[in-house]
Amino acid sequence: MEEQRKKVTIVLFSGTLDRALAAFIIATSAAAMGMDVTIFFTFWGLNVLKRHGQQPKGKGWMRRMLNWMNRGTARQLPLSRFDFAGLGPWMMGRLMREQRMQSLPEMIVQAKSLGVKFIVCTTSCGLMGIEQGNVIPEADLFAGAATYLGEASKAQVNLFI
Amino acid sequence: MEEQRKKVTIVLFSGTLDRALAAFIIATSAAAMGMDVTIFFTFWGLNVLKRHGQQPKGKGWMRRMLNWMNRGTARQLPLSRFDFAGLGPWMMGRLMREQRMQSLPEMIVQAKSLGVKFIVCTTSCGLMGIEQGNVIPEADLFAGAATYLGEASKAQVNLFI
Amino acid sequence: MEEQRKKVTIVLFSGTLDRALAAFIIATSAAAMGMDVTIFFTFWGLNVLKRHGQQPKGKGWMRRMLNWMNRGTARQLPLSRFDFAGLGPWMMGRLMREQRMQSLPEMIVQAKSLGVKFIVCTTSCGLMGIEQGNVIPEADLFAGAATYLGEASKAQVNLFI
Repeated sequence: MEEQRKKVTIVLFSGTLDRALAAFIIATSAAAMGMDVTIFFTFWGLNVLKRHGQQPKGKGWMRRMLNWMNRGTARQLPLSRFDFAGLGPWMMGRLMREQRMQSLPEMIVQAKSLGVKFIVCTTSCGLMGIEQGNVIPEADLFAGAATYLGEASKAQVNLFI
Repeated sequence: MEEQRKKVTIVLFSGTLDRALAAFIIATSAAAMGMDVTIFFTFWGLNVLKRHGQQPKGKGWMRRMLNWMNRGTARQLPLSRFDFAGLGPWMMGRLMREQRMQSLPEMIVQAKSLGVKFIVCTTSCGLMGIEQGNVIPEADLFAGAATYLGEASKAQVNLFI
Repeated sequence: MEEQRKKVTIVLFSGTLDRALAAFIIATSAAAMGMDVTIFFTFWGLNVLKRHGQQPKGKGWMRRMLNWMNRGTARQLPLSRFDFAGLGPWMMGRLMREQRMQSLPEMIVQAKSLGVKFIVCTTSCGLMGIEQGNVIPEADLFAGAATYLGEASKAQVNLFI
């Protein structure tokens, strides 16, 4: 009888490059080890899945303002420390290339090819006025906290990042 | 024989509106699904349980200064991004009402009615000079890390928010 | 037949005093309760294990600049809120002593004496140019995400702090 596959879930709440990298390094490593991995993108973490050049607008001036301030995709996220208006992330990208690490957009592609499941939080989408067209096609599912909890309650490793 | 109820614990360390909302959306969803949920409020997360109009003072000028700076209850928490001296949380509240989401104070009431257990971290209370009278009556228990760990080690989902 | 020991893992990603304290209070409490505890230090969390007076330099001007900005050891970490250029952490230290709490460097020593295992993230070390000589001797192991996941998938409590 085969042993059941281990399962990992990550809530990616943060929209900073450093935390998104941590989430994707853990997710791709786990998937490469044969684990079943789900990332639930919520709040600022949704930026990681936003489609480049398709910034959401949303209904009402408040959403438009929020989306204008909160622009940024996986190609361009701030650092939680030492951001310096984008200089920090640029330097981080250079250091990563020098270490032959993948960039965040490359990690997204790799995660998908390893079978990592991407769930987009519908509550956050509603709040921020993000629609399916604003999200990259790698997203598997739009769902809420109940779907996340169904997966997490069967997993061995659950992280909130 | 009945299957055992799934169990969720959340350490709420952060005192920002966005992270507190994430914690309460997960907690109330889990409780509504029949899971057994405990939130352990510690450090800045204690603000969520502070009683309105009963800001703690504490012993010594350092505690008084800390509590004066760290004022705020579930009705008035900053956002981790785009706070703009309270404009951000006000806009978030408007967007939430428009989406027919509950406010954080309403989620606290709902969580209690669904049986979510609130533990207040005694170590943080001692450090910050917070007393029982400064905390809303919804708190179930004042206890330390050992009590939290006793619960977490029996849970399927443990998050640090 | 003896029941198996419960297991706790913590990813310490943050380099702030408040989050490091939360991690170490949970870690030492769990170890004192007889649980098997591993802390995986990554990104800004590496600062907690940096050796005083041995700030890493690293190869290239970008790493030197990053390490110069990101200086700080367990003796001197910023607070995530109310840091005020070090005044906040100094006050926190005074309040902790008054409450007879251990300082962070003392907690590190206690954690080791209770058998807590410290893993240093090799990916972060490579990125930031941190070498073995820059890290305190209490570190047990330099390893990557796969080692962390091996431990976490056997643990009951896994936290990302």
